[in-house]
Amino acid sequence: MNRIYLDYASATPVMPEVRQAMAGAMEAFGNPSSLHAAGREAGQALERARGQVAALIGAKSEEIYFTSCGTESNNWAIRGLLAANKRKGNHLIVSSIEHPSILLLAKRFEREGADVTYLPVTSEGLVEPQALKEALTPATVLVSIMHANGEIGTIEPIAELATMAKGAGAFFHTDAVASAGHVPVDVKPLGVDALSIAANQFYGPSGVAALYLREGVRALPLLEGGGQETGARSGTENVLGIIGMGVAAELARTQMTSRAAHASRLRDRLKEGLLQRLEGVRLNGSWSARLPHNLHLCIEGVSSESLVLGLDAQGIAVGIGSACNSKAMRPSHVLKAMGLSDDEAKGALLLTVGVPTSEQEIDRCLEVLPKVASQLRNVTAMTLAK
Amino acid sequence: MNRIYLDYASATPVMPEVRQAMAGAMEAFGNPSSLHAAGREAGQALERARGQVAALIGAKSEEIYFTSCGTESNNWAIRGLLAANKRKGNHLIVSSIEHPSILLLAKRFEREGADVTYLPVTSEGLVEPQALKEALTPATVLVSIMHANGEIGTIEPIAELATMAKGAGAFFHTDAVASAGHVPVDVKPLGVDALSIAANQFYGPSGVAALYLREGVRALPLLEGGGQETGARSGTENVLGIIGMGVAAELARTQMTSRAAHASRLRDRLKEGLLQRLEGVRLNGSWSARLPHNLHLCIEGVSSESLVLGLDAQGIAVGIGSACNSKAMRPSHVLKAMGLSDDEAKGALLLTVGVPTSEQEIDRCLEVLPKVASQLRNVTAMTLAK
Repeated sequence: MNRIYLDYASATPVMPEVRQAMAGAMEAFGNPSSLHAAGREAGQALERARGQVAALIGAKSEEIYFTSCGTESNNWAIRGLLAANKRKGNHLIVSSIEHPSILLLAKRFEREGADVTYLPVTSEGLVEPQALKEALTPATVLVSIMHANGEIGTIEPIAELATMAKGAGAFFHTDAVASAGHVPVDVKPLGVDALSIAANQFYGPSGVAALYLREGVRALPLLEGGGQETGARSGTENVLGIIGMGVAAELARTQMTSRAAHASRLRDRLKEGLLQRLEGVRLNGSWSARLPHNLHLCIEGVSSESLVLGLDAQGIAVGIGSACNSKAMRPSHVLKAMGLSDDEAKGALLLTVGVPTSEQEIDRCLEVLPKVASQLRNVTAMTLAK
Repeated sequence: MNRIYLDYASATPVMPEVRQAMAGAMEAFGNPSSLHAAGREAGQALERARGQVAALIGAKSEEIYFTSCGTESNNWAIRGLLAANKRKGNHLIVSSIEHPSILLLAKRFEREGADVTYLPVTSEGLVEPQALKEALTPATVLVSIMHANGEIGTIEPIAELATMAKGAGAFFHTDAVASAGHVPVDVKPLGVDALSIAANQFYGPSGVAALYLREGVRALPLLEGGGQETGARSGTENVLGIIGMGVAAELARTQMTSRAAHASRLRDRLKEGLLQRLEGVRLNGSWSARLPHNLHLCIEGVSSESLVLGLDAQGIAVGIGSACNSKAMRPSHVLKAMGLSDDEAKGALLLTVGVPTSEQEIDRCLEVLPKVASQLRNVTAMTLAK
């Protein structure tokens, strides 16, 4: 059985060019902090990758700090910016559809006495600028709103939101983990102070990510020690992973247009096909501001878990929502924030296409998915009839 | 020019078996949090590696939490154990020769109002149990003393120190980053509650490490988000790096005796040779409790930096102290804690041998190092005479 992978939102394969660069770098080694030639070579490889990552998001090299994952970048941005600007105030604004690495920290700060506003979203998952405007106060230190939601695919109006926050004297962070490498993410026009990205979302290795901190913006370190990354993020660098992230960033930048065209074409084929062949399908997210590779739907009368496992048995890998939540078996906080009932959110399915996805794979999925869904509905109906 | 590497304390090459395992895993991919087959396979690879790492230190698999570096493990242990046990008190004890990832946190807690004791060390770099005994109070929450110091090579009497701390009701953490994989590090006889190790110290990749937390010991998470690592350490896992760390741990465990014998034989050859051929050499650290691959010395009348660069020009890579400090050009806090004056500490040199080191390489170093040192001394003498 040929396996079909339609879960690129949870993990992307490592591109051949990335693999090659990493395999080549495994021969060499050295600690970038060392003074000798082996150390300097590792340091140069690091700086090359820093430049490649910076280019992907229109930043300067020295504004890029490597971390170990999107979660670390997000945790660091929130903790570090709040801690460095305590004098300004104690108010944090986040959207209600952020990743847990933002939301859990917001809840922690709330328990510790901070004032946190959770912005609502529309039924399409969009944050409304008016809502942010009303929430901003002179005590607002930081606004953190994701660039795109990896689950429902909606892209937020970050430039507008960031301008508003800056106008009120607050810092603005955006979690661009789901979008960087897929759609243009350029820190200048976005006007953000901090931005998180992760390599495993754009065909680089997992375990390596970055935080962009605009020149002059200070965030207290999350990891302290030997003073790597100009003291902002201590810890021996993941040299191999960083080299891989650099190459993946360069490929994502140069191939972005063609990848996005390929993705949206196949995603739309999948969407249209499913709507034709399956009753009771609800599409989620915005269709005017959306990640090109993302299709998120709710299928009536079945549960996400049974769908994922049923499709897996047929060799098709799909997701539910955030991979981080996928084993939790609870309705997604994102869908709830969009106003879906627990029952409506129950059959949520996340289908994401990627560079290697073919038309044949889409067609096979269009054949199998409706069958699996109707079998599951029959089982449910029989169980209820008993 | 054949390059000779004698700086295994700052970075080790990735073993061929490790490289192979990682290269193989690059073909596959998947997010361990996903429900489908690709996700489950990644999850199984993770658990295999967890078992391999656990076996290296005599722990149970479920006591191992993967992190991104030794610094993260150390930061997490200190922050997490203190935060989870605030009720017990506000007193932390560390040795004065800890890695910056412990010492800087201790200093931060001190600024924030905690009570911190920095234990002195003997001229050999040993913490004296009597000093710990006197420092322990009913308010002591945590004692953190490193298993071995990566700079001077001294191995601390952890079992005795941990028993003492536990007797006083305090938790005991040890930073075993420099020693794990080189000498037996077994959590049971050591009697520790938490222990840090890093793969890049035992021929695994950099950017992956682990924290051992004894069953039942609670440490608040440092990274919060999607709930990976049973909620203790969120963030998409560095699957490739973890697979590499697992294989490296297994090799280190099965080859430990032969590697240590090889290392100490070559290290001793280097030591004896240098003492014979060079005047004004001071050996540092303990010779009864020492890492087998470590030689640390101070050479009179020259500076560490000029020695490292002079040897580098001859194709020989050596270190100074902690790689993290090597560019800082300041006398090591470890040597100062052992009672060396700034002047004595100025010519510090760290020579570490590894699995690939040959007798020929040692002999070449014995030929070159005395020449470089005396040239540098002549330059210094001429400069002073002017």
